[in-house]
Amino acid sequence: MPKPKGFEKPIGVRDYLPYAAGKLRAIERSVLDCMASWGYRQIMTPTMEYYDTVGVASSTSDQKLFKLLNNRGTTMVLRSDMTSPIARVVSSLLKEEPLPLRLSYHANVFRSIEEEAGKEAEFFQTGVELVGDDSPEADAEVVALAVASLQAAGVVSFKIAIGHVGFLNGLIEEAIPEQGDREALKEGLLHRDYVGFRETLAGLSIPSEKKEELEGILRLRGGKEVCGQALELSHSPLAQHSVQHLGKVWDALEDHGVAQHVMIDLTMIGDFSYYTGMTFEGYAADLGFPVCSGGRYDNLLQQFGRPAPATGFALKTNRILDGVDGIEFSPQLPVLLQYDAAHRKEALAEARKLRAAGRSVMMRHVDQSEEVLTKAETRVGPLGPSYGETISFVSKS
Amino acid sequence: MPKPKGFEKPIGVRDYLPYAAGKLRAIERSVLDCMASWGYRQIMTPTMEYYDTVGVASSTSDQKLFKLLNNRGTTMVLRSDMTSPIARVVSSLLKEEPLPLRLSYHANVFRSIEEEAGKEAEFFQTGVELVGDDSPEADAEVVALAVASLQAAGVVSFKIAIGHVGFLNGLIEEAIPEQGDREALKEGLLHRDYVGFRETLAGLSIPSEKKEELEGILRLRGGKEVCGQALELSHSPLAQHSVQHLGKVWDALEDHGVAQHVMIDLTMIGDFSYYTGMTFEGYAADLGFPVCSGGRYDNLLQQFGRPAPATGFALKTNRILDGVDGIEFSPQLPVLLQYDAAHRKEALAEARKLRAAGRSVMMRHVDQSEEVLTKAETRVGPLGPSYGETISFVSKS
Repeated sequence: MPKPKGFEKPIGVRDYLPYAAGKLRAIERSVLDCMASWGYRQIMTPTMEYYDTVGVASSTSDQKLFKLLNNRGTTMVLRSDMTSPIARVVSSLLKEEPLPLRLSYHANVFRSIEEEAGKEAEFFQTGVELVGDDSPEADAEVVALAVASLQAAGVVSFKIAIGHVGFLNGLIEEAIPEQGDREALKEGLLHRDYVGFRETLAGLSIPSEKKEELEGILRLRGGKEVCGQALELSHSPLAQHSVQHLGKVWDALEDHGVAQHVMIDLTMIGDFSYYTGMTFEGYAADLGFPVCSGGRYDNLLQQFGRPAPATGFALKTNRILDGVDGIEFSPQLPVLLQYDAAHRKEALAEARKLRAAGRSVMMRHVDQSEEVLTKAETRVGPLGPSYGETISFVSKS
Repeated sequence: MPKPKGFEKPIGVRDYLPYAAGKLRAIERSVLDCMASWGYRQIMTPTMEYYDTVGVASSTSDQKLFKLLNNRGTTMVLRSDMTSPIARVVSSLLKEEPLPLRLSYHANVFRSIEEEAGKEAEFFQTGVELVGDDSPEADAEVVALAVASLQAAGVVSFKIAIGHVGFLNGLIEEAIPEQGDREALKEGLLHRDYVGFRETLAGLSIPSEKKEELEGILRLRGGKEVCGQALELSHSPLAQHSVQHLGKVWDALEDHGVAQHVMIDLTMIGDFSYYTGMTFEGYAADLGFPVCSGGRYDNLLQQFGRPAPATGFALKTNRILDGVDGIEFSPQLPVLLQYDAAHRKEALAEARKLRAAGRSVMMRHVDQSEEVLTKAETRVGPLGPSYGETISFVSKS
């Protein structure tokens, strides 16, 4: 039997039934409250932005942007992240506000995707941007806040890997003359394809001791000792400076009391083209994909006319919703308050009284042919029961 | 000087800076909590829907829908309301769930508009749908919940006008033979253009006593006595049945204890084509436009394959945000906790302690060339002050 057309919703988007909606709202509230307790203030921006400004500045590749036209025929996009819209706001409405600025958001973002991939075309991100501070202190603050935010979202067991795009850029540019070879190596790291990385490396026409050094990148994962190993691996000023910066971030993370949740991973390349410094990704135990990502993007704001360093991160809120069960969330089941015509006024007054006392009350009019329900509903199915206990204002017939 | 391109956002959409975002969130939370206390469960649906299903079923005229294409070239729309998407969900994911169903939502919706009109292209609605109950009890419940929701949103002084599309249809169809004349009269009522209504009426070739009767519609505004007047005005079975139904709704609203917030207005035509029964609009004192609207739509669900009566309403949340100041909303100003390098660990430990105690704490690293701040910030401007009191962990030099 063919499905009626009415059943269809677009591929890649989803409906949130009450349990999922309630859990998502609980995560949203808890994480935004956490961010507020670090001095980050929430802002909201439009779903649609101009393609020529925010669309082009975003890190999302052009073919993944949802595009539409307004009445004037100007191309707009559905926002693909919140970093570029916030950069626009900081450079316009907040142009006169002194830096640093701490801003938070919870928003749905959009990516046009290959339907086969099974990826979501609309999903939520909950994150912060810290604009106007280029210090290791600022980098450490956002990593420590990412730790606190994941905990607020109910993620108990996780690890945040921090890296630095400057280290890899410095090391690879020093050792590899050809641009194409550089890109091929970075491509392998970006996709964590270490076999491909080794094969690309083996095929390069550079001295074999250089190859061994570069293969050494793959071992640069661990605690602060990694910084020492990295400093020996490359003498490029960019790589050296980047690793020293990361060492300072690590020290600050120790003072934040979160170093046990963090590791250094110098094989990591942030997947956003606008990252310029430290980048990081959070992995939850038992989940094969990141639950948060972030990093420093010191060149984005100047595209909007207000040059300023910036760093931030976003939780991948849908992945946490679907993959993690740590958030406390127990929706209150309403009382079912039943009444007949003769007792309506009395029953409605009782409902008002119960609601004022913080209870949830659902009304049910019972006519003479209907049964008064006396037991809590035990319905199974997508919505579960709609009421817990029952109360009745019905005359016995 | 021409503005940099980066300053621009599309016309008709807006940024919510922290004060507005916080107030909007406070309204959202308070209203959704109110709806939950009446047994309504929140659902969320995608921003994009198929044009052929939800787009066509929505009450929004075609030229006001934002359209875009997915990868397969299928036309999608940005949702223009939540009633049609919820009808889709009730008929698909919730197909097996017994009725009645009580569902709530807070969502942004989209209307492509004439830019000159200064109207918003994206705005929020907070509402409910009650599916599967065609009784006057159900109509009264959603009106009483609209009263409670407006109060939860901080709207202190308001009036809800209730009408019935069946009364006007019955009366006009009985008295006016020509379809074009009927539409012209309804058009006048829809836009509350009573001068136009009278002129149209005067030009009709119907008996003058009929004209007088029809002009009597304009006086059908007030309390329950209006029902009696209306029953005298038309003997069409549809009009009679509609007015009797409205009388029962009024009685139930008295039992709900909200009749003082309600008036009957039989001149009102709901502006949604899918309304089939009682319709209503809420007006706040001092605001010239409705802050909520709703009504019965018994024919929409069958378009999605699950015939069922339904009623509901939506608060026009942005109008309440901009026009009404009743919601309690006092954002907590963070403590500014300043530290130098020597005291970082101690300062961060203090910050953790304060946050665990429910305080908001913003960190500031102070180096030797910088001044320690000792007074609460008094910044004016779009963001206002970012901190209240100050604490310092800095050695005197």
